[in-house]
Amino acid sequence: MTITIIGIGLIGGSLAMALRKNGFGTRFVGVDSSATHRSDAIWLGLVDEILPLDDAVRKSDLIILAIPVDAAGQTLLHLLDTVENDRTVIADMGSTKSEICSLCRNHRRRGQYVASHPIAGTEFSGPKAAVENLFQGKKMIVCDPEASSPYALATLTGMYEALGMDVSFMPSEMHDRHIAFVSHISHISSFALGTTVLNIEKDEKSIFTMAGSGFSSTVRLAKSSPQTWNPIFIQNADSILLALDAYIEQLEKFRQSLKSRNSSQLEQLMTEANEIKKIIK
Amino acid sequence: MTITIIGIGLIGGSLAMALRKNGFGTRFVGVDSSATHRSDAIWLGLVDEILPLDDAVRKSDLIILAIPVDAAGQTLLHLLDTVENDRTVIADMGSTKSEICSLCRNHRRRGQYVASHPIAGTEFSGPKAAVENLFQGKKMIVCDPEASSPYALATLTGMYEALGMDVSFMPSEMHDRHIAFVSHISHISSFALGTTVLNIEKDEKSIFTMAGSGFSSTVRLAKSSPQTWNPIFIQNADSILLALDAYIEQLEKFRQSLKSRNSSQLEQLMTEANEIKKIIK
Repeated sequence: MTITIIGIGLIGGSLAMALRKNGFGTRFVGVDSSATHRSDAIWLGLVDEILPLDDAVRKSDLIILAIPVDAAGQTLLHLLDTVENDRTVIADMGSTKSEICSLCRNHRRRGQYVASHPIAGTEFSGPKAAVENLFQGKKMIVCDPEASSPYALATLTGMYEALGMDVSFMPSEMHDRHIAFVSHISHISSFALGTTVLNIEKDEKSIFTMAGSGFSSTVRLAKSSPQTWNPIFIQNADSILLALDAYIEQLEKFRQSLKSRNSSQLEQLMTEANEIKKIIK
Repeated sequence: MTITIIGIGLIGGSLAMALRKNGFGTRFVGVDSSATHRSDAIWLGLVDEILPLDDAVRKSDLIILAIPVDAAGQTLLHLLDTVENDRTVIADMGSTKSEICSLCRNHRRRGQYVASHPIAGTEFSGPKAAVENLFQGKKMIVCDPEASSPYALATLTGMYEALGMDVSFMPSEMHDRHIAFVSHISHISSFALGTTVLNIEKDEKSIFTMAGSGFSSTVRLAKSSPQTWNPIFIQNADSILLALDAYIEQLEKFRQSLKSRNSSQLEQLMTEANEIKKIIK
Protein backbone atom coordinates (compact mmCIF):
# COMPACT_ATOMS: atom_id res chain seq x y z
CA MET A 1 0.00 0.00 0.00
CA THR A 2 1.38 3.39 -1.02
CA ILE A 3 0.52 6.19 1.40
CA THR A 4 0.84 9.86 0.50
CA ILE A 5 1.11 12.39 3.26
CA ILE A 6 0.32 15.96 2.28
CA GLY A 7 2.03 18.22 4.81
CA ILE A 8 4.97 16.48 6.48
CA GLY A 9 5.05 18.50 9.69
CA LEU A 10 4.49 17.51 13.31
CA ILE A 11 1.27 15.60 12.55
CA GLY A 12 2.04 14.24 9.07
CA GLY A 13 5.61 13.32 9.98
CA SER A 14 4.59 11.62 13.23
CA LEU A 15 1.91 9.69 11.39
CA ALA A 16 4.40 8.48 8.78
CA MET A 17 6.74 7.27 11.54
CA ALA A 18 3.96 5.48 13.42
CA LEU A 19 2.54 3.85 10.28
CA ARG A 20 5.94 2.56 9.21
CA LYS A 21 6.64 1.23 12.71
CA ASN A 22 3.30 -0.61 12.76
CA GLY A 23 3.82 -2.16 9.33
CA PHE A 24 1.13 -0.07 7.69
CA GLY A 25 2.07 0.94 4.14
CA THR A 26 4.94 -0.27 1.99
CA ARG A 27 5.85 3.09 0.50
CA PHE A 28 5.49 6.63 1.82
CA VAL A 29 5.24 9.62 -0.49
CA GLY A 30 5.51 13.17 0.82
CA VAL A 31 3.96 16.34 -0.57
CA ASP A 32 4.80 19.69 1.01
CA SER A 33 4.78 23.30 -0.17
CA SER A 34 7.93 24.09 1.85
CA ALA A 35 11.30 23.19 0.30
CA THR A 36 12.85 22.97 3.77
CA HIS A 37 10.15 20.58 4.95
CA ARG A 38 10.60 18.47 1.82
CA SER A 39 14.33 18.06 2.30
CA ASP A 40 13.99 17.56 6.06
CA ALA A 41 11.37 14.86 5.50
CA ILE A 42 13.71 12.92 3.19
CA TRP A 43 16.76 13.50 5.38
CA LEU A 44 14.87 12.34 8.49
CA GLY A 45 13.56 9.29 6.61
CA LEU A 46 9.93 10.23 7.21
CA VAL A 47 9.01 9.49 3.57
CA ASP A 48 10.63 7.50 0.76
CA GLU A 49 10.14 10.12 -1.92
CA ILE A 50 8.79 13.59 -2.53
CA LEU A 51 6.40 14.16 -5.43
CA PRO A 52 4.20 16.94 -6.78
CA LEU A 53 0.61 16.56 -5.55
CA ASP A 54 -0.98 15.15 -8.71
CA ASP A 55 1.79 12.58 -9.31
CA ALA A 56 1.50 11.43 -5.71
CA VAL A 57 -2.28 11.05 -5.95
CA ARG A 58 -2.06 8.76 -8.97
CA LYS A 59 0.23 6.36 -7.09
CA SER A 60 -1.62 6.30 -3.79
CA ASP A 61 -3.98 3.88 -2.08
CA LEU A 62 -4.30 6.19 0.91
CA ILE A 63 -3.86 9.98 1.12
CA ILE A 64 -3.54 11.82 4.41
CA LEU A 65 -4.08 15.58 4.55
CA ALA A 66 -2.07 17.12 7.39
CA ILE A 67 -1.96 20.79 6.36
CA PRO A 68 -3.50 23.91 7.94
CA VAL A 69 -7.31 23.81 7.91
CA ASP A 70 -7.68 26.78 5.55
CA ALA A 71 -5.81 24.85 2.83
CA ALA A 72 -7.25 21.42 3.62
CA GLY A 73 -10.77 22.06 2.28
CA GLN A 74 -9.77 23.15 -1.22
CA THR A 75 -7.08 20.47 -1.43
CA LEU A 76 -9.64 17.83 -0.48
CA LEU A 77 -11.98 19.02 -3.23
CA HIS A 78 -9.11 18.89 -5.72
CA LEU A 79 -8.26 15.35 -4.61
CA LEU A 80 -11.87 14.18 -4.91
CA ASP A 81 -12.07 15.79 -8.37
CA THR A 82 -8.86 14.19 -9.66
CA VAL A 83 -8.62 10.81 -7.96
CA GLU A 84 -9.29 8.08 -10.52
CA ASN A 85 -9.41 4.95 -8.41
CA ASP A 86 -12.64 4.22 -6.48
CA ARG A 87 -10.61 2.45 -3.78
CA THR A 88 -8.27 5.35 -2.99
CA VAL A 89 -9.10 6.59 0.49
CA ILE A 90 -8.51 10.10 1.79
CA ALA A 91 -8.47 11.38 5.39
CA ASP A 92 -7.62 14.70 6.99
CA MET A 93 -6.22 15.49 10.45
CA GLY A 94 -7.56 19.01 11.05
CA SER A 95 -8.76 20.47 14.34
CA THR A 96 -11.98 21.85 12.78
CA LYS A 97 -14.43 19.55 11.01
CA SER A 98 -17.63 21.47 10.11
CA GLU A 99 -16.25 23.49 7.21
CA ILE A 100 -14.40 20.69 5.46
CA CYS A 101 -17.35 18.28 5.87
CA SER A 102 -19.70 20.92 4.58
CA LEU A 103 -17.49 21.75 1.55
CA CYS A 104 -17.45 18.17 0.22
CA ARG A 105 -20.95 17.15 1.38
CA ASN A 106 -22.40 16.76 -2.11
CA HIS A 107 -19.29 15.53 -3.94
CA ARG A 108 -19.91 12.29 -5.84
CA ARG A 109 -16.75 10.86 -4.26
CA ARG A 110 -17.58 12.01 -0.67
CA GLY A 111 -17.61 8.35 0.44
CA GLN A 112 -13.88 8.05 -0.19
CA TYR A 113 -13.12 10.70 2.45
CA VAL A 114 -12.96 10.19 6.22
CA ALA A 115 -13.02 13.31 8.43
CA SER A 116 -10.63 12.71 11.35
CA HIS A 117 -9.15 14.67 14.22
CA PRO A 118 -6.46 13.14 16.41
CA ILE A 119 -6.43 14.54 19.98
CA ALA A 120 -2.66 14.63 19.92
CA GLY A 121 -0.04 17.25 19.34
CA THR A 122 2.70 19.31 20.90
CA GLU A 123 3.54 23.02 20.85
CA PHE A 124 6.22 22.35 18.19
CA SER A 125 5.85 22.18 14.42
CA GLY A 126 7.59 21.03 11.24
CA PRO A 127 9.13 17.64 10.25
CA LYS A 128 11.80 17.86 12.95
CA ALA A 129 9.06 17.95 15.60
CA ALA A 130 7.71 14.56 14.44
CA VAL A 131 7.77 11.81 17.08
CA GLU A 132 6.94 8.14 16.59
CA ASN A 133 4.63 7.71 19.58
CA LEU A 134 2.54 10.92 19.22
CA PHE A 135 -0.67 8.97 18.55
CA GLN A 136 -0.17 5.93 20.82
CA GLY A 137 -2.99 5.75 23.39
CA LYS A 138 -4.64 8.96 22.13
CA LYS A 139 -8.19 9.65 20.93
CA MET A 140 -9.09 9.83 17.24
CA ILE A 141 -12.41 11.47 16.54
CA VAL A 142 -14.03 10.55 13.22
CA CYS A 143 -16.80 12.92 12.17
CA ASP A 144 -19.93 12.27 10.12
CA PRO A 145 -18.99 8.58 9.65
CA GLU A 146 -22.26 7.87 7.80
CA ALA A 147 -21.01 10.01 4.91
CA SER A 148 -17.94 7.81 4.40
CA SER A 149 -18.16 4.51 2.52
CA PRO A 150 -17.93 1.37 4.66
CA TYR A 151 -14.65 0.53 2.90
CA ALA A 152 -13.06 3.93 3.59
CA LEU A 153 -14.29 3.93 7.19
CA ALA A 154 -13.01 0.40 7.85
CA THR A 155 -9.62 1.20 6.31
CA LEU A 156 -9.10 4.30 8.43
CA THR A 157 -10.55 3.10 11.73
CA GLY A 158 -8.56 -0.12 11.36
CA MET A 159 -5.44 1.91 10.75
CA TYR A 160 -6.03 4.24 13.71
CA GLU A 161 -6.66 1.29 16.02
CA ALA A 162 -3.48 -0.39 14.78
CA LEU A 163 -1.66 2.77 15.89
CA GLY A 164 -3.06 2.22 19.40
CA MET A 165 -5.67 4.97 19.09
CA ASP A 166 -9.12 5.02 20.65
CA VAL A 167 -11.54 5.86 17.80
CA SER A 168 -14.86 7.58 18.52
CA PHE A 169 -17.53 9.05 16.25
CA MET A 170 -19.32 12.37 16.36
CA PRO A 171 -21.24 14.81 14.11
CA SER A 172 -18.85 17.46 12.77
CA GLU A 173 -20.84 20.38 14.24
CA MET A 174 -20.79 18.84 17.70
CA HIS A 175 -17.04 18.21 17.36
CA ASP A 176 -16.34 21.87 16.64
CA ARG A 177 -18.59 23.12 19.44
CA HIS A 178 -16.95 20.85 22.02
CA ILE A 179 -13.36 21.18 20.87
CA ALA A 180 -13.61 24.98 21.29
CA PHE A 181 -13.93 24.38 25.04
CA VAL A 182 -11.39 21.59 25.56
CA SER A 183 -8.67 22.68 23.14
CA HIS A 184 -9.06 25.96 21.26
CA ILE A 185 -9.74 28.12 24.35
CA SER A 186 -6.69 26.59 26.08
CA HIS A 187 -4.54 27.90 23.24
CA ILE A 188 -5.98 31.42 23.47
CA SER A 189 -5.61 31.38 27.27
CA SER A 190 -1.97 30.46 26.84
CA PHE A 191 -1.16 32.89 23.98
CA ALA A 192 -2.68 35.75 25.99
CA LEU A 193 -0.80 34.79 29.15
CA GLY A 194 2.51 34.64 27.29
CA THR A 195 2.10 38.16 25.91
CA THR A 196 0.92 39.54 29.27
CA VAL A 197 4.14 38.44 30.94
CA LEU A 198 6.36 39.37 27.97
CA ASN A 199 4.90 42.90 28.10
CA ILE A 200 5.54 43.37 31.81
CA GLU A 201 9.07 42.02 31.41
CA LYS A 202 9.92 45.04 29.24
CA ASP A 203 9.71 47.16 32.41
CA GLU A 204 10.53 44.58 35.06
CA LYS A 205 13.70 42.92 33.78
CA SER A 206 14.68 39.36 34.69
CA ILE A 207 11.15 38.51 35.80
CA PHE A 208 11.43 35.15 34.01
CA THR A 209 14.18 33.92 36.31
CA MET A 210 11.35 33.59 38.86
CA ALA A 211 9.13 31.46 36.62
CA GLY A 212 8.52 27.88 37.71
CA SER A 213 6.79 24.78 36.42
CA GLY A 214 3.29 26.21 36.95
CA PHE A 215 3.98 29.13 34.64
CA SER A 216 5.63 26.85 32.04
CA SER A 217 2.64 24.56 32.09
CA THR A 218 0.07 27.31 31.54
CA VAL A 219 2.14 29.13 28.90
CA ARG A 220 3.43 26.11 26.94
CA LEU A 221 0.82 26.38 24.18
CA ALA A 222 1.85 30.00 23.51
CA LYS A 223 4.71 28.51 21.48
CA SER A 224 2.23 26.98 19.01
CA SER A 225 2.37 27.81 15.31
CA PRO A 226 0.26 30.81 14.19
CA GLN A 227 0.07 29.22 10.70
CA THR A 228 -1.69 26.20 12.18
CA TRP A 229 -3.89 28.01 14.69
CA ASN A 230 -4.97 31.12 12.81
CA PRO A 231 -7.26 29.27 10.36
CA ILE A 232 -8.57 27.03 13.16
CA PHE A 233 -9.59 30.10 15.18
CA ILE A 234 -11.20 31.73 12.12
CA GLN A 235 -13.13 28.60 11.11
CA ASN A 236 -14.38 27.94 14.64
CA ALA A 237 -14.77 31.58 15.70
CA ASP A 238 -18.44 31.30 16.79
CA SER A 239 -17.86 28.44 19.21
CA ILE A 240 -14.56 29.88 20.44
CA LEU A 241 -16.28 33.20 21.17
CA LEU A 242 -18.80 31.37 23.38
CA ALA A 243 -15.93 29.73 25.27
CA LEU A 244 -13.92 32.95 25.47
CA ASP A 245 -16.89 34.97 26.78
CA ALA A 246 -17.50 32.34 29.48
CA TYR A 247 -13.79 32.34 30.34
CA ILE A 248 -13.53 36.13 30.64
CA GLU A 249 -16.67 36.05 32.80
CA GLN A 250 -14.97 33.63 35.23
CA LEU A 251 -11.85 35.84 35.29
CA GLU A 252 -14.05 38.85 36.05
CA LYS A 253 -15.42 36.98 39.08
CA PHE A 254 -11.87 36.55 40.34
CA ARG A 255 -11.24 40.22 39.62
CA GLN A 256 -14.26 41.35 41.63
CA SER A 257 -13.38 39.05 44.54
CA LEU A 258 -9.81 40.35 44.57
CA LYS A 259 -10.91 43.99 44.38
CA SER A 260 -13.22 43.57 47.36
CA ARG A 261 -10.76 41.23 49.16
CA ASN A 262 -13.67 38.78 49.37
CA SER A 263 -11.92 35.74 50.73
CA SER A 264 -14.98 33.48 50.97
CA GLN A 265 -15.94 34.21 47.36
CA LEU A 266 -12.38 33.45 46.21
CA GLU A 267 -12.47 30.20 48.15
CA GLN A 268 -15.75 29.27 46.48
CA LEU A 269 -14.39 30.03 42.99
CA MET A 270 -11.37 27.80 43.62
CA THR A 271 -13.42 25.01 45.21
CA GLU A 272 -15.64 24.95 42.10
CA ALA A 273 -12.57 24.73 39.86
CA ASN A 274 -11.13 21.91 42.01
CA GLU A 275 -13.90 19.66 40.63
CA ILE A 276 -11.63 19.27 37.61
CA LYS A 277 -9.68 16.75 39.76
CA LYS A 278 -12.44 14.21 39.24
CA ILE A 279 -12.04 14.50 35.49
CA ILE A 280 -8.39 15.19 34.68
CA LYS A 281 -6.10 12.76 36.48
CA MET B 1 20.91 19.63 64.45
CA THR B 2 17.22 19.34 65.32
CA ILE B 3 14.93 20.76 62.65
CA THR B 4 11.27 21.54 63.27
CA ILE B 5 8.92 21.77 60.34
CA ILE B 6 5.67 23.60 60.98
CA GLY B 7 3.16 22.39 58.39
CA ILE B 8 4.12 18.96 57.05
CA GLY B 9 2.33 19.20 53.71
CA LEU B 10 3.65 19.19 50.13
CA ILE B 11 6.34 21.80 50.85
CA GLY B 12 7.23 20.94 54.48
CA GLY B 13 7.14 17.20 53.84
CA SER B 14 9.25 17.45 50.67
CA LEU B 15 11.76 19.63 52.51
CA ALA B 16 12.06 17.09 55.34
CA MET B 17 12.70 14.31 52.82
CA ALA B 18 15.32 16.34 50.94
CA LEU B 19 17.10 17.48 54.11
CA ARG B 20 17.30 13.95 55.47
CA LYS B 21 18.59 12.64 52.15
CA ASN B 22 21.29 15.32 52.03
CA GLY B 23 22.43 14.63 55.59
CA PHE B 24 21.11 17.93 56.91
CA GLY B 25 19.68 17.58 60.43
CA THR B 26 19.88 14.68 62.84
CA ARG B 27 16.32 14.85 64.11
CA PHE B 28 13.11 16.09 62.48
CA VAL B 29 10.19 17.32 64.52
CA GLY B 30 6.80 17.96 62.96
CA VAL B 31 4.12 20.45 64.00
CA ASP B 32 0.76 20.45 62.23
CA SER B 33 -2.76 21.56 63.12
CA SER B 34 -4.29 18.61 61.24
CA ALA B 35 -4.47 15.25 63.06
CA THR B 36 -4.49 13.44 59.71
CA HIS B 37 -1.37 15.27 58.55
CA ARG B 38 0.34 14.49 61.86
CA SER B 39 -0.31 10.76 61.64
CA ASP B 40 0.49 10.67 57.89
CA ALA B 41 3.79 12.46 58.52
CA ILE B 42 4.85 9.86 61.10
CA TRP B 43 3.57 6.93 59.07
CA LEU B 44 5.40 8.17 55.95
CA GLY B 45 8.59 8.71 57.96
CA LEU B 46 8.73 12.41 57.08
CA VAL B 47 9.49 13.37 60.71
CA ASP B 48 10.76 11.50 63.77
CA GLU B 49 8.25 12.89 66.22
CA ILE B 50 5.27 15.21 66.46
CA LEU B 51 5.24 17.86 69.17
CA PRO B 52 3.12 20.86 70.17
CA LEU B 53 4.57 24.09 68.76
CA ASP B 54 6.18 25.46 71.92
CA ASP B 55 7.81 22.13 72.88
CA ALA B 56 9.22 21.83 69.36
CA VAL B 57 10.64 25.36 69.42
CA ARG B 58 12.58 24.74 72.63
CA LYS B 59 14.34 21.73 71.09
CA SER B 60 15.13 23.24 67.68
CA ASP B 61 18.20 24.68 66.02
CA LEU B 62 16.25 25.41 62.85
CA ILE B 63 12.53 26.03 62.38
CA ILE B 64 10.85 25.99 58.97
CA LEU B 65 7.40 27.53 58.51
CA ALA B 66 5.53 25.82 55.67
CA ILE B 67 1.94 26.80 56.44
CA PRO B 68 -0.53 29.02 54.51
CA VAL B 69 0.64 32.64 54.34
CA ASP B 70 -2.25 33.98 56.42
CA ALA B 71 -1.08 31.87 59.39
CA ALA B 72 2.66 32.25 58.79
CA GLY B 73 2.96 35.90 59.85
CA GLN B 74 1.43 35.52 63.32
CA THR B 75 3.22 32.22 63.90
CA LEU B 76 6.53 33.86 63.00
CA LEU B 77 5.89 36.67 65.52
CA HIS B 78 5.05 34.06 68.17
CA LEU B 79 8.28 32.17 67.39
CA LEU B 80 10.40 35.33 67.56
CA ASP B 81 8.71 36.23 70.87
CA THR B 82 9.26 32.83 72.47
CA VAL B 83 12.53 31.52 71.05
CA GLU B 84 15.19 31.62 73.80
CA ASN B 85 18.35 30.70 71.93
CA ASP B 86 20.06 33.43 69.88
CA ARG B 87 21.34 30.78 67.42
CA THR B 88 17.95 29.29 66.56
CA VAL B 89 17.21 30.15 62.96
CA ILE B 90 13.73 30.46 61.40
CA ALA B 91 12.71 30.50 57.73
CA ASP B 92 9.37 30.49 55.95
CA MET B 93 8.44 29.09 52.52
CA GLY B 94 5.47 31.30 51.57
CA SER B 95 4.60 32.59 48.11
CA THR B 96 4.11 36.19 49.37
CA LYS B 97 6.88 38.03 51.16
CA SER B 98 5.91 41.70 51.70
CA GLU B 99 3.41 41.17 54.50
CA ILE B 100 5.47 38.75 56.58
CA CYS B 101 8.62 40.88 56.20
CA SER B 102 6.70 43.98 57.15
CA LEU B 103 5.12 42.30 60.21
CA CYS B 104 8.44 41.38 61.82
CA ARG B 105 10.48 44.35 60.53
CA ASN B 106 11.07 45.91 63.97
CA HIS B 107 11.24 42.75 66.05
CA ARG B 108 14.40 42.59 68.16
CA ARG B 109 14.99 39.03 66.88
CA ARG B 110 14.33 39.87 63.17
CA GLY B 111 17.90 38.80 62.33
CA GLN B 112 17.11 35.18 63.23
CA TYR B 113 14.51 34.99 60.44
CA VAL B 114 15.17 34.41 56.72
CA ALA B 115 12.33 35.15 54.29
CA SER B 116 12.40 32.48 51.57
CA HIS B 117 10.26 31.38 48.64
CA PRO B 118 11.11 28.20 46.74
CA ILE B 119 9.97 28.30 43.08
CA ALA B 120 8.81 24.72 43.36
CA GLY B 121 5.52 22.98 43.89
CA THR B 122 2.86 20.80 42.34
CA GLU B 123 -0.92 21.02 42.16
CA PHE B 124 -1.18 18.48 45.00
CA SER B 125 -1.15 19.08 48.75
CA GLY B 126 -0.72 17.33 52.11
CA PRO B 127 2.03 15.00 53.45
CA LYS B 128 1.22 12.30 50.89
CA ALA B 129 2.06 14.75 48.09
CA ALA B 130 5.63 15.19 49.42
CA VAL B 131 8.40 14.16 47.01
CA GLU B 132 12.12 13.95 47.75
CA ASN B 133 13.35 15.83 44.66
CA LEU B 134 10.85 18.75 44.66
CA PHE B 135 13.59 21.33 45.29
CA GLN B 136 16.47 19.82 43.29
CA GLY B 137 17.59 22.28 40.58
CA LYS B 138 14.92 24.86 41.48
CA LYS B 139 15.20 28.55 42.43
CA MET B 140 15.06 29.73 46.02
CA ILE B 141 14.38 33.43 46.40
CA VAL B 142 15.54 34.98 49.66
CA CYS B 143 14.00 38.39 50.38
CA ASP B 144 15.37 41.37 52.29
CA PRO B 145 18.62 39.48 53.10
CA GLU B 146 20.10 42.56 54.80
CA ALA B 147 17.52 42.16 57.58
CA SER B 148 18.75 38.65 58.43
CA SER B 149 21.87 38.09 60.56
CA PRO B 150 24.94 36.85 58.69
CA TYR B 151 24.71 33.60 60.71
CA ALA B 152 21.03 32.98 59.83
CA LEU B 153 21.60 33.87 56.18
CA ALA B 154 24.67 31.62 55.88
CA THR B 155 22.84 28.70 57.54
CA LEU B 156 19.85 28.90 55.23
CA THR B 157 21.59 29.70 51.95
CA GLY B 158 24.09 26.92 52.68
CA MET B 159 21.24 24.53 53.30
CA TYR B 160 19.35 25.53 50.15
CA GLU B 161 22.48 25.15 48.06
CA ALA B 162 23.13 21.73 49.59
CA LEU B 163 19.65 20.76 48.34
CA GLY B 164 20.76 21.69 44.82
CA MET B 165 18.85 24.97 44.75
CA ASP B 166 19.86 28.18 43.01
CA VAL B 167 19.59 30.95 45.62
CA SER B 168 18.91 34.54 44.59
CA PHE B 169 18.14 37.70 46.58
CA MET B 170 15.47 40.35 46.12
CA PRO B 171 13.54 43.00 48.04
CA SER B 172 10.23 41.55 49.31
CA GLU B 173 8.09 44.17 47.50
CA MET B 174 9.76 43.40 44.16
CA HIS B 175 9.29 39.68 44.78
CA ASP B 176 5.53 40.07 45.26
CA ARG B 177 5.14 42.35 42.24
CA HIS B 178 6.99 39.95 39.95
CA ILE B 179 5.61 36.69 41.27
CA ALA B 180 2.07 37.95 40.55
CA PHE B 181 2.97 37.80 36.85
CA VAL B 182 4.95 34.55 36.71
CA SER B 183 3.00 32.45 39.19
CA HIS B 184 -0.14 33.87 40.78
CA ILE B 185 -1.84 34.87 37.50
CA SER B 186 -1.13 31.39 36.06
CA HIS B 187 -3.13 29.92 38.91
CA ILE B 188 -6.09 32.26 38.33
CA SER B 189 -5.94 31.59 34.57
CA SER B 190 -6.12 27.87 35.29
CA PHE B 191 -8.83 28.00 37.99
CA ALA B 192 -11.02 30.09 35.67
CA LEU B 193 -10.44 27.77 32.71
CA GLY B 194 -11.34 24.71 34.78
CA THR B 195 -14.67 26.20 35.86
CA THR B 196 -15.46 27.43 32.32
CA VAL B 197 -15.22 23.91 30.95
CA LEU B 198 -16.91 22.27 33.95
CA ASN B 199 -19.87 24.63 33.45
CA ILE B 200 -20.28 23.88 29.75
CA GLU B 201 -20.00 20.15 30.47
CA LYS B 202 -23.28 20.32 32.43
CA ASP B 203 -25.06 20.85 29.10
CA GLU B 204 -22.65 19.16 26.73
CA LYS B 205 -22.04 15.76 28.31
CA SER B 206 -18.84 13.76 27.76
CA ILE B 207 -16.97 16.80 26.50
CA PHE B 208 -13.94 15.75 28.57
CA THR B 209 -13.41 12.60 26.54
CA MET B 210 -12.13 15.03 23.87
CA ALA B 211 -9.60 16.73 26.12
CA GLY B 212 -5.93 16.24 25.29
CA SER B 213 -2.56 17.14 26.72
CA GLY B 214 -2.92 20.85 25.87
CA PHE B 215 -6.04 21.19 27.97
CA SER B 216 -4.50 19.18 30.83
CA SER B 217 -1.45 21.40 30.79
CA THR B 218 -3.39 24.68 30.97
CA VAL B 219 -5.88 23.40 33.57
CA ARG B 220 -3.46 21.50 35.85
CA LEU B 221 -3.14 24.29 38.42
CA ALA B 222 -6.95 24.36 38.85
CA LYS B 223 -6.44 21.38 41.16
CA SER B 224 -4.43 23.52 43.59
CA SER B 225 -5.49 23.89 47.22
CA PRO B 226 -7.84 26.85 47.97
CA GLN B 227 -6.48 26.86 51.56
CA THR B 228 -2.99 27.60 50.22
CA TRP B 229 -3.96 30.00 47.45
CA ASN B 230 -6.74 32.04 49.01
CA PRO B 231 -4.47 33.91 51.48
CA ILE B 232 -1.79 34.33 48.78
CA PHE B 233 -4.33 36.00 46.47
CA ILE B 234 -5.61 38.23 49.29
CA GLN B 235 -2.13 39.28 50.44
CA ASN B 236 -0.94 40.02 46.90
CA ALA B 237 -4.25 41.34 45.54
CA ASP B 238 -2.89 44.67 44.26
CA SER B 239 -0.16 43.13 42.10
CA ILE B 240 -2.39 40.28 40.95
CA LEU B 241 -5.05 42.79 39.87
CA LEU B 242 -2.46 44.52 37.67
CA ALA B 243 -1.58 41.17 36.08
CA LEU B 244 -5.21 40.13 35.74
CA ASP B 245 -6.23 43.42 34.10
CA ALA B 246 -3.39 43.06 31.59
CA TYR B 247 -4.36 39.44 30.95
CA ILE B 248 -8.06 40.22 30.38
CA GLU B 249 -6.97 43.03 28.04
CA GLN B 250 -4.99 40.53 25.92
CA LEU B 251 -7.96 38.15 25.87
CA GLU B 252 -10.19 41.04 24.74
CA LYS B 253 -7.84 41.59 21.79
CA PHE B 254 -8.34 37.96 20.78
CA ARG B 255 -12.08 38.44 21.26
CA GLN B 256 -12.19 41.48 18.98
CA SER B 257 -10.08 39.77 16.32
CA LEU B 258 -12.32 36.69 16.39
CA LYS B 259 -15.50 38.78 16.24
CA SER B 260 -14.29 40.63 13.17
CA ARG B 261 -12.65 37.50 11.71
CA ASN B 262 -9.46 39.59 11.53
CA SER B 263 -6.95 36.97 10.51
CA SER B 264 -3.91 39.25 10.26
CA GLN B 265 -4.55 40.66 13.73
CA LEU B 266 -4.90 37.14 15.16
CA GLU B 267 -1.64 36.18 13.48
CA GLN B 268 0.07 39.19 15.03
CA LEU B 269 -1.25 38.37 18.51
CA MET B 270 0.08 34.83 18.25
CA THR B 271 3.42 35.88 16.77
CA GLU B 272 3.93 38.24 19.73
CA ALA B 273 3.14 35.41 22.16
CA ASN B 274 5.57 33.10 20.33
CA GLU B 275 8.42 35.23 21.72
CA ILE B 276 7.98 33.18 24.89
CA LYS B 277 9.95 30.45 23.05
CA LYS B 278 13.13 32.42 23.62
CA ILE B 279 12.51 32.42 27.35
CA ILE B 280 10.78 29.19 28.32
CA LYS B 281 12.56 26.21 26.84
